[in-house]
Amino acid sequence: MMAAGGELQLLGAWYSPYVFRVKVALALKGLSYEYVELDLFNKSDLLLRSNPVHKSVPVLIHGGRPVCESIVVLQYIDETWAGSGAPLLTPADAHDRATARFWAAYVDDKFFQSWKAISWSTTEEKRTEAFKNAVPVVERLEQAFRECSKGKAFFGGDAIGLVDVALGSLLMAIKVVDEVNGTNLLDEAKFPGLAAWAERFLAVDVVKEATPDAGKLMEEYKGSMAKWIASR
Amino acid sequence: MMAAGGELQLLGAWYSPYVFRVKVALALKGLSYEYVELDLFNKSDLLLRSNPVHKSVPVLIHGGRPVCESIVVLQYIDETWAGSGAPLLTPADAHDRATARFWAAYVDDKFFQSWKAISWSTTEEKRTEAFKNAVPVVERLEQAFRECSKGKAFFGGDAIGLVDVALGSLLMAIKVVDEVNGTNLLDEAKFPGLAAWAERFLAVDVVKEATPDAGKLMEEYKGSMAKWIASR
Repeated sequence: MMAAGGELQLLGAWYSPYVFRVKVALALKGLSYEYVELDLFNKSDLLLRSNPVHKSVPVLIHGGRPVCESIVVLQYIDETWAGSGAPLLTPADAHDRATARFWAAYVDDKFFQSWKAISWSTTEEKRTEAFKNAVPVVERLEQAFRECSKGKAFFGGDAIGLVDVALGSLLMAIKVVDEVNGTNLLDEAKFPGLAAWAERFLAVDVVKEATPDAGKLMEEYKGSMAKWIASR
Repeated sequence: MMAAGGELQLLGAWYSPYVFRVKVALALKGLSYEYVELDLFNKSDLLLRSNPVHKSVPVLIHGGRPVCESIVVLQYIDETWAGSGAPLLTPADAHDRATARFWAAYVDDKFFQSWKAISWSTTEEKRTEAFKNAVPVVERLEQAFRECSKGKAFFGGDAIGLVDVALGSLLMAIKVVDEVNGTNLLDEAKFPGLAAWAERFLAVDVVKEATPDAGKLMEEYKGSMAKWIASR
């Protein structure tokens, strides 16, 4: 582990895919940090002070100064510790970097929204509809994988990059929701590139270490769904 | 004007604030380019081929390769022509850069959405409600201005930066909607920092040259609203 050069703290919640992104990035750079698990239903002063705008995690606090929003945090880590010896999360070529930023935004704005519609569907009918709507969104990601990876293992090429971390953070949650509902969103037959990528990504050591336990995540999802249905 | 090093084309629509952003960035870098005005109600093959995912403008085509999504394009321009002699749009310091990216995302995700709710309101009652909801969102931007400008003229400090271009692109449209509705969103009494910044920003030469004509924009807005109301 490398000393961060200034105290480094990560405010998170164990089940958050956004927090997972930052954990993976910090691990890839070999940085040591203090992890602070927060209760998002009872927000601490530290969180409200560090991220007054969105009041959400992750927040990376470096030398007392907070950085918020996971994609912004990933780029901050990449640029601040560019000399760590680890491969860069964002490609060196400006056009490839623009492409990576484009797809990272697509993951958050389009894919995550489509998938949330599946995961929070309260009836079989709504879920079937949401799943149908998500398929073309995943098709785009299959194309994105071909475009970014250029025949290599990851969106980032030989090494994990920005899009790998952005999309990979959702894989465990996708698996849990698939298992509960008997679906298979990243179907190998339909999306061979993505399905093989997902296996490779989840097998990477730093990813395995940051990945929440599937059983615990399943309980969390079932509990949240039960509350969500009861509240409606 | 500097030659771009590879053919440079901008696909746009004259009234689009997102396209305005790219025009300003290209002008700041002193780059010459071919501007192609598109009809977004009758999308050309060039647009569908260049931006198959979102089918929207701006698209910057550099040496035959498209770059899409305005904030991504701004960073591409900044990084590709970093040696143009013009000040960088994104700050050199990594933490300041993260702060600029954070607020640029806020402008698109929070502020623009709040303001759209005002501009597309079909009744006085809905508009009053939307305006009330937007006020705290603007308050955050007043704080952001203090945080980013550090007492200087722009979010970018002495020179126009990423957040200036992101937010500044909406100023003319805000004025038009204010004028039609008799409102004043960036009220000088409530938001002295932002109001003074807006005047300074619109007085910058490259901004003035890229700004759509207020009268023409007013006609466009009134025409779109009439169609919107008729379609409901």
